[in-house]
Amino acid sequence: MHVKKVLVIDIGGSNIKLFVTGRPGRLKIPSGPALTPRRLVQEVKKATVDWRYDVVSIGYPGPVVRGKIAAEPVNLGSGWVRFNFARSLGRPVRLINDAAMQALGSYRGRSMLFLGLGTGLGTTLVRGGVVVPLEAAHLPYRNGKSYEEFIGEAGMLRMGRKKWGEHVFIVVDLMLAAFVADYAVLGGGNVRLLEELPPRTRRGKNANAFRGGERLWVNDIVCV
Amino acid sequence: MHVKKVLVIDIGGSNIKLFVTGRPGRLKIPSGPALTPRRLVQEVKKATVDWRYDVVSIGYPGPVVRGKIAAEPVNLGSGWVRFNFARSLGRPVRLINDAAMQALGSYRGRSMLFLGLGTGLGTTLVRGGVVVPLEAAHLPYRNGKSYEEFIGEAGMLRMGRKKWGEHVFIVVDLMLAAFVADYAVLGGGNVRLLEELPPRTRRGKNANAFRGGERLWVNDIVCV
Repeated sequence: MHVKKVLVIDIGGSNIKLFVTGRPGRLKIPSGPALTPRRLVQEVKKATVDWRYDVVSIGYPGPVVRGKIAAEPVNLGSGWVRFNFARSLGRPVRLINDAAMQALGSYRGRSMLFLGLGTGLGTTLVRGGVVVPLEAAHLPYRNGKSYEEFIGEAGMLRMGRKKWGEHVFIVVDLMLAAFVADYAVLGGGNVRLLEELPPRTRRGKNANAFRGGERLWVNDIVCV
Repeated sequence: MHVKKVLVIDIGGSNIKLFVTGRPGRLKIPSGPALTPRRLVQEVKKATVDWRYDVVSIGYPGPVVRGKIAAEPVNLGSGWVRFNFARSLGRPVRLINDAAMQALGSYRGRSMLFLGLGTGLGTTLVRGGVVVPLEAAHLPYRNGKSYEEFIGEAGMLRMGRKKWGEHVFIVVDLMLAAFVADYAVLGGGNVRLLEELPPRTRRGKNANAFRGGERLWVNDIVCV
């Protein structure tokens, strides 16, 4: 059987990371507020001119609904909604939210909650191979403040690392129960500030985004 | 094509409701704290002796994980975990949590949040045909109290109908955003106490449990 070679494009605010099945490591090309999808495709084609791949997965930094970009990105150029990536890349393309792609790559079966501890707070549930992006960060948590206001970047700066870490433990415990998850994976830039991890929790790895992009082409994976 | 005839068994604390594809209405047989699964099967066989069906769906009042009963029920007899329904009923059987079955029956596409307003507060998400039972009722909502303590039965008795109704509006709005749902369906015994419904919300119907049980046998429906 021919195993599909997947080109994975992980679009961030300052970098775009490129991976392809069977090639170790990754390639970084610059992103930024002027990046349009047309420009992205040009840069990707140039950077991967001697790569071989059958299909493409794109991790997009914004909402993706039923496989389609649902809103323009906050930190990039415009023209993303309705852009035809399959036509301009000449390959079948699957789109997924970037955090959901990392969550999918971190998945090891059963029911997993992925929390992205960065500027904001990303929340993605993966159950039985089904990816369920959530927006639980803005629910109230304490004193009229949201989860994100406590365990996002602003909360960490306000409370200090130690207190912030204590709230990460409490929130993981609450959310594991609420979302009926067996374990949590913590990703995002601030995970390194945690010296210990809450029970039933693992650290995510950036490389998992690549695995997530590849898994999008496995038939029993669905993103809802 | 032969359409499968589904026997749907909806197990409640005081009644068991029986439906079958193509037969209007339902049959009720008594339930209660002494009900064991063996007894259930005997009663169901007796009540449906002249019904024809190919497969069975069971709505179970407790946690069902990956199609299996995960804990004994609170208000019934014992022996439910690991009981072999398929063998004793002589048909293929699919199990689902009772609230999830009603949620599935209320589903009209896209992303739906089902809230069961009863003694407690049931929360089920259905997205793209995938049923995702949640346990969000116990998350903190206000003043250290949970959603359930506000919009469950106890909250309604404490605050009175009017104030309770106002909180239902607020909670629906918060949860539609958190669970990225396009609309909400409100089920459970206390929905009748709401004179108006929140925006983007419909009332559930009990008969939807039957439709949910039938849909469990449609191939693109998954419960995770």
